[in-house]
Amino acid sequence: MPEIGIGVVGGGYMGKAHAVALSAVGAVFNTVLRPRLEMIAASSTMTAERYRADYGFLRATGDWRDLVADPKVEAVVIASPQDTHRVIAEAAFARGKPVFCEKPLGASLADAEAMTRAAEASGVAHMVGFNYVRTPATQFARKLIAEGAIGKVTWFRGEHTEDFLADPALPATWRTRGMANGVLGDLAPHMLNCALALMGPVASLSAMVETVHATRNGAAGPEAVTNDDHTQLMCRFATGAMGHLYFSRIATGRKMGYAYEVHGTAGAIRFDQEDQNALWLYRAEGPEAERGFRKILTGPVHPDYLAFCQGPGHGTGYQDQIIIEARDFLAAIAAGVPQWPSFHDGLAVWRIADAAARSAMDGRWISLDTEH
Amino acid sequence: MPEIGIGVVGGGYMGKAHAVALSAVGAVFNTVLRPRLEMIAASSTMTAERYRADYGFLRATGDWRDLVADPKVEAVVIASPQDTHRVIAEAAFARGKPVFCEKPLGASLADAEAMTRAAEASGVAHMVGFNYVRTPATQFARKLIAEGAIGKVTWFRGEHTEDFLADPALPATWRTRGMANGVLGDLAPHMLNCALALMGPVASLSAMVETVHATRNGAAGPEAVTNDDHTQLMCRFATGAMGHLYFSRIATGRKMGYAYEVHGTAGAIRFDQEDQNALWLYRAEGPEAERGFRKILTGPVHPDYLAFCQGPGHGTGYQDQIIIEARDFLAAIAAGVPQWPSFHDGLAVWRIADAAARSAMDGRWISLDTEH
Amino acid sequence: MPEIGIGVVGGGYMGKAHAVALSAVGAVFNTVLRPRLEMIAASSTMTAERYRADYGFLRATGDWRDLVADPKVEAVVIASPQDTHRVIAEAAFARGKPVFCEKPLGASLADAEAMTRAAEASGVAHMVGFNYVRTPATQFARKLIAEGAIGKVTWFRGEHTEDFLADPALPATWRTRGMANGVLGDLAPHMLNCALALMGPVASLSAMVETVHATRNGAAGPEAVTNDDHTQLMCRFATGAMGHLYFSRIATGRKMGYAYEVHGTAGAIRFDQEDQNALWLYRAEGPEAERGFRKILTGPVHPDYLAFCQGPGHGTGYQDQIIIEARDFLAAIAAGVPQWPSFHDGLAVWRIADAAARSAMDGRWISLDTEH
Amino acid sequence: MPEIGIGVVGGGYMGKAHAVALSAVGAVFNTVLRPRLEMIAASSTMTAERYRADYGFLRATGDWRDLVADPKVEAVVIASPQDTHRVIAEAAFARGKPVFCEKPLGASLADAEAMTRAAEASGVAHMVGFNYVRTPATQFARKLIAEGAIGKVTWFRGEHTEDFLADPALPATWRTRGMANGVLGDLAPHMLNCALALMGPVASLSAMVETVHATRNGAAGPEAVTNDDHTQLMCRFATGAMGHLYFSRIATGRKMGYAYEVHGTAGAIRFDQEDQNALWLYRAEGPEAERGFRKILTGPVHPDYLAFCQGPGHGTGYQDQIIIEARDFLAAIAAGVPQWPSFHDGLAVWRIADAAARSAMDGRWISLDTEH
Repeated sequence: MPEIGIGVVGGGYMGKAHAVALSAVGAVFNTVLRPRLEMIAASSTMTAERYRADYGFLRATGDWRDLVADPKVEAVVIASPQDTHRVIAEAAFARGKPVFCEKPLGASLADAEAMTRAAEASGVAHMVGFNYVRTPATQFARKLIAEGAIGKVTWFRGEHTEDFLADPALPATWRTRGMANGVLGDLAPHMLNCALALMGPVASLSAMVETVHATRNGAAGPEAVTNDDHTQLMCRFATGAMGHLYFSRIATGRKMGYAYEVHGTAGAIRFDQEDQNALWLYRAEGPEAERGFRKILTGPVHPDYLAFCQGPGHGTGYQDQIIIEARDFLAAIAAGVPQWPSFHDGLAVWRIADAAARSAMDGRWISLDTEH
Repeated sequence: MPEIGIGVVGGGYMGKAHAVALSAVGAVFNTVLRPRLEMIAASSTMTAERYRADYGFLRATGDWRDLVADPKVEAVVIASPQDTHRVIAEAAFARGKPVFCEKPLGASLADAEAMTRAAEASGVAHMVGFNYVRTPATQFARKLIAEGAIGKVTWFRGEHTEDFLADPALPATWRTRGMANGVLGDLAPHMLNCALALMGPVASLSAMVETVHATRNGAAGPEAVTNDDHTQLMCRFATGAMGHLYFSRIATGRKMGYAYEVHGTAGAIRFDQEDQNALWLYRAEGPEAERGFRKILTGPVHPDYLAFCQGPGHGTGYQDQIIIEARDFLAAIAAGVPQWPSFHDGLAVWRIADAAARSAMDGRWISLDTEH
Repeated sequence: MPEIGIGVVGGGYMGKAHAVALSAVGAVFNTVLRPRLEMIAASSTMTAERYRADYGFLRATGDWRDLVADPKVEAVVIASPQDTHRVIAEAAFARGKPVFCEKPLGASLADAEAMTRAAEASGVAHMVGFNYVRTPATQFARKLIAEGAIGKVTWFRGEHTEDFLADPALPATWRTRGMANGVLGDLAPHMLNCALALMGPVASLSAMVETVHATRNGAAGPEAVTNDDHTQLMCRFATGAMGHLYFSRIATGRKMGYAYEVHGTAGAIRFDQEDQNALWLYRAEGPEAERGFRKILTGPVHPDYLAFCQGPGHGTGYQDQIIIEARDFLAAIAAGVPQWPSFHDGLAVWRIADAAARSAMDGRWISLDTEH
Repeated sequence: MPEIGIGVVGGGYMGKAHAVALSAVGAVFNTVLRPRLEMIAASSTMTAERYRADYGFLRATGDWRDLVADPKVEAVVIASPQDTHRVIAEAAFARGKPVFCEKPLGASLADAEAMTRAAEASGVAHMVGFNYVRTPATQFARKLIAEGAIGKVTWFRGEHTEDFLADPALPATWRTRGMANGVLGDLAPHMLNCALALMGPVASLSAMVETVHATRNGAAGPEAVTNDDHTQLMCRFATGAMGHLYFSRIATGRKMGYAYEVHGTAGAIRFDQEDQNALWLYRAEGPEAERGFRKILTGPVHPDYLAFCQGPGHGTGYQDQIIIEARDFLAAIAAGVPQWPSFHDGLAVWRIADAAARSAMDGRWISLDTEH
């Protein structure tokens, strides 16, 4: 099996997740390429070196430009802060190297547009790290909806809610600065991508975007919070279905509230990432006295589960989603094609987030061009 | 204990529920008045007579005017179709008789305004049948929020979802005709009242109101559906909190989806009427490793539970809510004062429903006068 | 509709429940007899008089013998302490009056045997108050199992667990004295009756019966606890299925843990009274990827639900179970036949409890005569 | 970081799981040794070669003896059928090589005794693959109980239930032959180990062991099933607490029913592996009206979670348990000491299983020597 040298930019939360995934993916799946952990880049040589040792990379660098330029780095995973995504991706594409970029795709709509243009121009593989759509449960939900198992969909409600900033006493950090680190930039993309995956394009929306805790204590006293704490939007999908989306980092008690419910004329689906190995399905069929939401535990008969375990209900976890992403990125590299969700999908997410911000500003409905 | 003669108008779904409640309330609670099931009115003498025999009333009439005028009928319960509420209530108030009116309060905002004026002019007791706020769980939720148990509330999401018209093949009936029988008139009032009870006044809103299945088969062929199948609204409460409400009769799989979640700076509450004896409470306190939503089973220590059972977790049901209403109405009669939720509250609900309809029509935000 | 005068002995927990049920049953169901709350008996005239006023009885007495002897009392409900059941029932049967006896059927196996003989000799209706088998969910479970919906049953696990004596610091009371007030006498009968209803006779068993907190503080210092805190038994049903039963009053956190799970070759059922309006059904059929336990919310299509509410998922509660019992007892009186669960069933329960006590004492298996 | 060459015997279900774990563990944790996937053994050279290529081992062999004898194989993981455990372990220990053995520890009590003697004699590290006790939730439960968070424990109920042989039409396979492949040998060990971890030694027990489906279709017609389909036991722990354990492979609807509930004088714990990222904790403290079981979602504050993800509620899965085992085995190798659960623990599990089989045979209680 041919090897491919992977360079990972960033070794924090997501950088580590990708390092683990790249280490494990070859044993889990029959990948077409075997990844070699060639190089890791961080903000300093010392940090990078520590990541190298911890995660098992061959080399380390304090400058991502070295990584992108290195001939043994044949593909790049971007897991650095959001405002660095664009320049790194553009540099990699310029050298014809496939790119996996963590969500969001850049720090703004403009970034995402530029990155998508660069990706298209390069002709190589690209992909965005919306990992939650890769759980066996959500993959199965997508399949059920696409096959019409719940009939014509009339309603979609999605949320991505956590509570890591629910306490007003928590200090100002990078998380409280800049739109791309607010809820619309940081959490919303996951669920927006999910909504697009399950429902297709959004035709129009009306949003409320709010900073509940306007100031937080910084190193030098009170500091203005410059991004949103929670945001909601009503929408109409291109299919005609009605929808609602809610994103929050102040949802006290919610730890991983990536959740959705979908109503159709013949059934319904419910899911909550906090119990990611269960999908709830209702089918309006059979004796009325026996109808109810079924708690389906994912197992070998569901998408991408079997490689992790032969037993149903034994469960996959967060890290396994990243392993599935790694397999898909490797396949895309080999095929030389974009992998869903690609930069186009990352851009589609930004278009909605941007429209939501404008809608909230003006207090009006906004139509989205669904022709892209 | 003094007796009071009660007349009930309507013997269907809710009329029966009130008959049962009036029969049982004296044994359940130490009421100040003992109700006498004096008379029941229905659309015909024959039907009324059947109800009388079934439910144990002393007398029956095919004309509600006889009931209202009868000297032995000292208070009136209105459980007839919504477009009859106003004229009956006005007639009862004109004779100085206390009125319990099923929700919604009349068939339109204009009805509700007129009925509230008549109630005020009469100086007697009045009350609206928003029974779901009377479960021990929701009463307790209201108390917790009012006491600040979850801190400052930042988010409220409520829904009232059922699926009795989810199947597009179901025929046209009275339910598919007229705004007061649509979702905004029929289901929304319960959850709007709940939102007001837990959160206080709504300052502004933006809504989508939709008839998904535009025609249904009637006796004479396809017939236009003239009210909404599902409706959603985003809102700002007067407290500053953000909210979302959703009402649906096409929510496949949902049978009694009267549900809400409330996020505060210090905790959160979740409730779903489909498991009405449980309230979920999260408190952001104590060791982080032990935090989680607690499933509190209602019991004798919660509001209005003990009268039904001395054992916790043994559970109350739908009918018990109506018994609690009966106790409260009797107390209000004796005291000669409005009982929460009174006609004023029923009117407040209509104001929101009416604003939602206008908002959806024009696709814009609407501010509500919260000074009422 | 003919009236019948009912006398209730005992006005506490269960006496009140029956008073409420007798008040409401005529409005809820089309009963063949209309109950008249003729007389209530308590341990003193004063207490009885208070109950009379509170619950709406016509007359009161401090001596149950007066009640049983009174010509206007045509049927007797026994809701007094367990060691009084036998003498009251025998007196009532001696006068040819139908008897509804709260569980357990007397304070010992000998009581139950004597009471059953008296019942048979009288030729009138008799019934035991195992109310929990009357929820729509458990009635439906029983029907499903009987119809073979889950195939041949291989396993039954039942429990009745509460925590009202979990705290070792709680004082000694009547509850801590005498076998009939221990777990085997007080809580076990409910679940034993359920097991018999769902599974049929028990062929053999092996049990552990334990008093965990051997002394509790009484009025005069430490006092020995003379009954069991928790008890378990393994059993073989006559059908060949294996089973396990557990009863506890020290099950910290459990409020109404009347719960069972039943495995069959073609499906499974799970139920927990703490969410009494849901029955969980698994059917081993259809696509494997869509299998799962369904949460069926009870509604009008399930046994005895419709009379309480036309809407599914709206829920019945504890008091409604007693109303269903009242309807069934009235029907039995009219028909002059025993009503399930009759004294025979109450006796069958005692036989198992007695065998469990003997098994635990000797540490051995005991075979039960299933020919009764 | 020093490397160590690992040899894995068996490449099926568990062999693959260990291969993945050994590939990932270095990136997930800061291990003291870095594992090198030196060699994999299977029943034939061809199969072994396929495993090698799939999982990324350096070398392959069709004879486990080669693997054990190979100087570059410094530690051995046994993931082959149960009747091969003993001879492989003895061979490895004879060469002074640390051994990780999948559960059960050999195919019989005699095997386990011999293996434990060999382990002790070798003086090197040894460990048994009871992976489920390594979820963050169960590790936390163990810690809570040990710290007295729920007071003195009075009751433990555990089960390991699956349904892979629930259908009587399923054919005879190796799973239906020999005690070690029955429920007592195959599933029970996991939960017995859990019970020992949470509760300490079992003092006495009484069991029922049953083959429900006595014959299944084999290649040559009906074939006798020679091991148990489900088994239960009542027990007394050395602490005095009472317990019940149930193991089944015919528990229709159950996919990973590794579940337990523990009652203490001050609280209770509930867990079900089907939702492995949640632990339910009840503490009998605080206002009674706010008490309830808390659904604690595991996160970085719980044992061994942080290495997989920084976000709470994001969830770990089956494969992550094996990664934790790999870290612990590597640590034990470096330290040259047994790792919990060691062969002693695997032997303790067999002692209980063996006693259960004898108890069921004779229908009597059996005391276990808890002095081991």
